[in-house]
Amino acid sequence: MSNADLVAKADNPVLAPPGLEGVAVAETTIGDVRGEEGFFHYRGYNATVLARECSFEQVWHLLIEGELPDPEQTKRFRADTVRLRTLPEQVSRLLPEIARIDPFVPLDALRTAVSLVASAIGLQPTMDISAEEVRQQAVRMTALVPVLLTGLYRAHQGLEPVAADPDLDYAASYLQMLTGERPDEVHARAVEKYLILTMDHGFNASTFTARVIASTGADMGSALVGAIGALSGPLHGGAPSRALHTLDEIGTEDRAYDYLKEKVISGERLMGFGHRVYKTDDPRSTLLREVALQLGGEQAQFAEHVEQTALQVLNELKPGRRLYTNVEFYAGVVMNTAGIPRDMFTPTFASSRTVGWTAAICEQASHNRLIRPSAVYVGPPPPRPLPVGYHYV
Amino acid sequence: MSNADLVAKADNPVLAPPGLEGVAVAETTIGDVRGEEGFFHYRGYNATVLARECSFEQVWHLLIEGELPDPEQTKRFRADTVRLRTLPEQVSRLLPEIARIDPFVPLDALRTAVSLVASAIGLQPTMDISAEEVRQQAVRMTALVPVLLTGLYRAHQGLEPVAADPDLDYAASYLQMLTGERPDEVHARAVEKYLILTMDHGFNASTFTARVIASTGADMGSALVGAIGALSGPLHGGAPSRALHTLDEIGTEDRAYDYLKEKVISGERLMGFGHRVYKTDDPRSTLLREVALQLGGEQAQFAEHVEQTALQVLNELKPGRRLYTNVEFYAGVVMNTAGIPRDMFTPTFASSRTVGWTAAICEQASHNRLIRPSAVYVGPPPPRPLPVGYHYV
Repeated sequence: MSNADLVAKADNPVLAPPGLEGVAVAETTIGDVRGEEGFFHYRGYNATVLARECSFEQVWHLLIEGELPDPEQTKRFRADTVRLRTLPEQVSRLLPEIARIDPFVPLDALRTAVSLVASAIGLQPTMDISAEEVRQQAVRMTALVPVLLTGLYRAHQGLEPVAADPDLDYAASYLQMLTGERPDEVHARAVEKYLILTMDHGFNASTFTARVIASTGADMGSALVGAIGALSGPLHGGAPSRALHTLDEIGTEDRAYDYLKEKVISGERLMGFGHRVYKTDDPRSTLLREVALQLGGEQAQFAEHVEQTALQVLNELKPGRRLYTNVEFYAGVVMNTAGIPRDMFTPTFASSRTVGWTAAICEQASHNRLIRPSAVYVGPPPPRPLPVGYHYV
Repeated sequence: MSNADLVAKADNPVLAPPGLEGVAVAETTIGDVRGEEGFFHYRGYNATVLARECSFEQVWHLLIEGELPDPEQTKRFRADTVRLRTLPEQVSRLLPEIARIDPFVPLDALRTAVSLVASAIGLQPTMDISAEEVRQQAVRMTALVPVLLTGLYRAHQGLEPVAADPDLDYAASYLQMLTGERPDEVHARAVEKYLILTMDHGFNASTFTARVIASTGADMGSALVGAIGALSGPLHGGAPSRALHTLDEIGTEDRAYDYLKEKVISGERLMGFGHRVYKTDDPRSTLLREVALQLGGEQAQFAEHVEQTALQVLNELKPGRRLYTNVEFYAGVVMNTAGIPRDMFTPTFASSRTVGWTAAICEQASHNRLIRPSAVYVGPPPPRPLPVGYHYV
């Protein structure tokens, strides 16, 4: 079908498929998911190769600047981003207050804090500033999200924030600001791979949200706040902690088969399995399995046992229906082993995804057009007369 | 074209028209804009008729409950909403802190405050609660927005918040909480008409944003925060204050012709004129002109003179091109005359539009499906080999 078929008619819109599935709403050079082929990429580079071979900063540069940095550019970008890890005083003063809100939900607290910091640093509407200024704001906001998140988390624990160590890269710095300890290099590198793998993933619902908001010309902060909100939705953000919860419930290897069989028979969803796009192994899962096993520890081996048992159970009960582990399954194991608390799993995901969101916002701002679809009205036909006796005046 | 033509193909998406123009992404029973016919409606009732004949609460009930309330229901709904005007203590304590953020932009401050209040009242993901609970949260959030906005505004002025007077309806209460004085009935009714007229307007960008976020199953607060962000975009929220600024610049009737002629010749946009959807008078503008003239005062008469002069200039310089005043033009005059400060014009619009946003969120939650379109990747084809010498490990 050609685009010409989708002719705009103001009073007679074409009804798109539910959820806009299969409808492309933009052209992008940021990346893509090739679900049938089982890989995804950032600007043409296989994302799992990037995660294996590159640093967070290099891939961040790739997504936000358009190209992988050479060694000199890497050094400069790293230095730039390290300098941006300082919160405005009016925000750092308020983080403990936000963290005191009961109930404390880290992602919701981040939504508030990002909104606050956007005001405090005076982000202007993207349409009123140059592409270069939008890009600078993107990098600054991305550098600040780990500071906000770890500050909120620690404040909620009654702990002082930990200043970012300029010697540490994004991933190691994140762990250090979270735990207060200089992280083991192996842990930091494992988390770095997870963070690179989750920076972007095609046109997901939160990235789309960011673009819709940016399309109004709004500031970067408004678009990020909306994206965080979308990520908090159970149908989108997923929850690496849920998969870990399943492992906890199973407890021991000998209980895996019966537990999983009962789940499948009762029709319950298996947490950590299945993805809307991939019809093969989720490439993120494949790499994270490897990372988890390299980190060692009982949990990784146990997870692998549960994975294999689940595939066996599915094969027995639903032959022909292929379900693979998704990004959630081993992500939880990796983060847990590296010392990230469970309620920070999804927020950690939000932190890396900020790279993808900001890249999308920059792209939207640089070729902007208001995203304003229609709806088909299917209620009582207008004009309805007002019912008698209900009038106000 | 039939829907069947828009077949979903995961790896081969159909490219929609830019900005999704003319593409309907949902069915709705909330309302519609009939741009060609020059009217818009809420659930089938002409919105300008509702603004003339009904109270804010009656139309709010219509949008959120689906039907106009009878007198008994009106009484009950009014009493319910009056009770919901109380902020949680942990939020009211923080409003002055949010208002102290420099620069103070009321709509951005509202974004932060709505995020905060959503956390403080513990809004759950809409997909985890019943439709009735979603509806209750919708009404509660709508009732709280004026309290947040006026509290923030007064705090920024160094003033204490004004408690809502249970004797006053939404519109009068809004003015009273803002100014600290019991408003003139004529002013309150004029503002009420404006508020009713701006509750909803088809599938605008902020309403769509709210639905996209709600489609992930996220909580009502996340969806509202995103909608506020989208409304802050210059391409969406507009700015009734801009049209008023034009009136100020013109200053006196005798200067109107030359000023407007110069603007049109230099190709500058005339603030307060033109709308993407209406090809006729904006029906909101027609009613607000009448309201402004009824309120009396020099400004309304001056605005009418400027409007007529602008139409004359356009007719002379761009014959055949019809441009009419839009909702911004007289909205500013009405709000100004009623005592609403200029920097609260767009926030006031956000307050009434919360009714439409929450109705859309309820509708989305009750027939939910994740909104997840695609993009067409047009960058360097994958897989690109990594450049030599850039590797990290």
